[in-house]
Amino acid sequence: MSLIVVGSMAFDAIETPFGKSDKIIGGAATYIAWSASNFYQPIKQISVVGGDFPQEELDQLEERGVELEGVQIKKNEKSFFWSGRYHLDMNTRDTLETQLNVLGTFEPVVPDSYQDAEFLMLGNLVPAVQLSVIQQLKKRPKLIVMDTMNFWMEVAMDDLKKVLKEIDVLMVNDSEARQLSGEFSLVKAARSIMKMGPRYLIIKKGEHGALLFHGNSVFFAPALPLEDVFDPTGAGDTFAGGFIGHVARTKDISFENMKSAIIVGSAMASFCVEKFGTTRLKEISRDDIENRIQQFRDLVNFDIQLA
Amino acid sequence: MSLIVVGSMAFDAIETPFGKSDKIIGGAATYIAWSASNFYQPIKQISVVGGDFPQEELDQLEERGVELEGVQIKKNEKSFFWSGRYHLDMNTRDTLETQLNVLGTFEPVVPDSYQDAEFLMLGNLVPAVQLSVIQQLKKRPKLIVMDTMNFWMEVAMDDLKKVLKEIDVLMVNDSEARQLSGEFSLVKAARSIMKMGPRYLIIKKGEHGALLFHGNSVFFAPALPLEDVFDPTGAGDTFAGGFIGHVARTKDISFENMKSAIIVGSAMASFCVEKFGTTRLKEISRDDIENRIQQFRDLVNFDIQLA
Repeated sequence: MSLIVVGSMAFDAIETPFGKSDKIIGGAATYIAWSASNFYQPIKQISVVGGDFPQEELDQLEERGVELEGVQIKKNEKSFFWSGRYHLDMNTRDTLETQLNVLGTFEPVVPDSYQDAEFLMLGNLVPAVQLSVIQQLKKRPKLIVMDTMNFWMEVAMDDLKKVLKEIDVLMVNDSEARQLSGEFSLVKAARSIMKMGPRYLIIKKGEHGALLFHGNSVFFAPALPLEDVFDPTGAGDTFAGGFIGHVARTKDISFENMKSAIIVGSAMASFCVEKFGTTRLKEISRDDIENRIQQFRDLVNFDIQLA
Repeated sequence: MSLIVVGSMAFDAIETPFGKSDKIIGGAATYIAWSASNFYQPIKQISVVGGDFPQEELDQLEERGVELEGVQIKKNEKSFFWSGRYHLDMNTRDTLETQLNVLGTFEPVVPDSYQDAEFLMLGNLVPAVQLSVIQQLKKRPKLIVMDTMNFWMEVAMDDLKKVLKEIDVLMVNDSEARQLSGEFSLVKAARSIMKMGPRYLIIKKGEHGALLFHGNSVFFAPALPLEDVFDPTGAGDTFAGGFIGHVARTKDISFENMKSAIIVGSAMASFCVEKFGTTRLKEISRDDIENRIQQFRDLVNFDIQLA
């Protein structure tokens, strides 16, 4: 019984209106693992890194209950690298440089010890890689959650649509939901996307929160109003980690429990953006998380008696 | 004991991606009165119209418990007219034409019968007119709520700042909060604006909901995810009407009750945008409103037990 996390483990270099980072540790699966491991262990990681990826980072993940048997280390190659610059609104960014490196030829291999997985979190990655992991699993997990991005809609839409048929929950942001569906209204977009495969759709709206759709039901999770969003890199992955971590811990895949999972994800994402990279995620305690979730309760709690 | 509503009563001509209206009835005070009268009567209206404003509309308002002694009718002049075109996202619009007409020389007169007002809703209007109403009241109302817009920040900022010193609750949208404060972060903007006078600040974010700030507390009300926003004209005024209507009915000006008032305002605004102008507001029943408020409860209600 476990949770498999698939995604990149990589280097980022980030510029925001508040400052500029060196080349720091990033990657979807890194953020997901740091976030989810607060709620559930072991996490069985599937990824690929180059010889330049620090052993110390791998050690820290192992200490957090993240198993690395499925992480390929290509000693003579370099890790994936992304560099980008955020605008003042933090919702838009320019990619300055992308080096695929090890990700360009990544063929995931699911170790035998991962075959008991109940939960599968497909972090943002080449859709063909996501599909390969699903196909290698002998028993379908109870819940398959997938994150993706606009880039794959542009260069690999056919593969992406194949993965969509195999999953339960899709996570995209609002502009990606519009792009994927061709609908401007998010309600119409959701209806259209749920016909492509996933029975649940989460639309992330950054500082404006997130929506969960399922059938005719909808749930809204706010984002915490923050003084400053210092660095939004990894916020979506951290959200995904909190979501799947809560679901895996409770082993409850109902719509009601997914509401809670989205709040947990939103709380985790609100920490992520407070410092560069994974810094803040490595610092926070269980009390920090409980207090933050209480802030979300206070943020939306109301009681109306009409006459 | 009553509620005074100040604002324009006017004509609009609206183009949206869904269609084009004729010259229809609009104006901040019109929307506020239609919305607030669901919760509280009598409403004591202060406005000005020309001889072209239909008697039938005035009659309908009176039937709804809206007193019109403070509405000046200038028989030989024309009512305020605005025409605009909305873009696909419905959050941005171009003004095509503005005819001030009777509003250009409007000097409000507060009738003696209005002097017992407990609540004052200053709809979006020339700041000097808003201030004049406050100054004419012999006894300060329990709560003064003010709506305004970016236009007045550009042409009448000094007057606007004078009004801010006299009020309790300010309502603006997110870009106006940024413009008024010079801060990009809405949390910082709120802190700055509350130093200008109002102890409560409501920041409206259209389809992304609304935030209520007070001291160090914040509350978030979502907007209902809608299939289509047909016509957003008047949504902010309708929100204001629901807010002040709920506060006036309950006579409770606490932060806790303002949370409920914002949900009521959001529910009313979600009706407003379903059809052109005030059409939908004139149709809805008490049951419609109660059902809509239940949808808001369902939209944000969650229950998390952490281990």
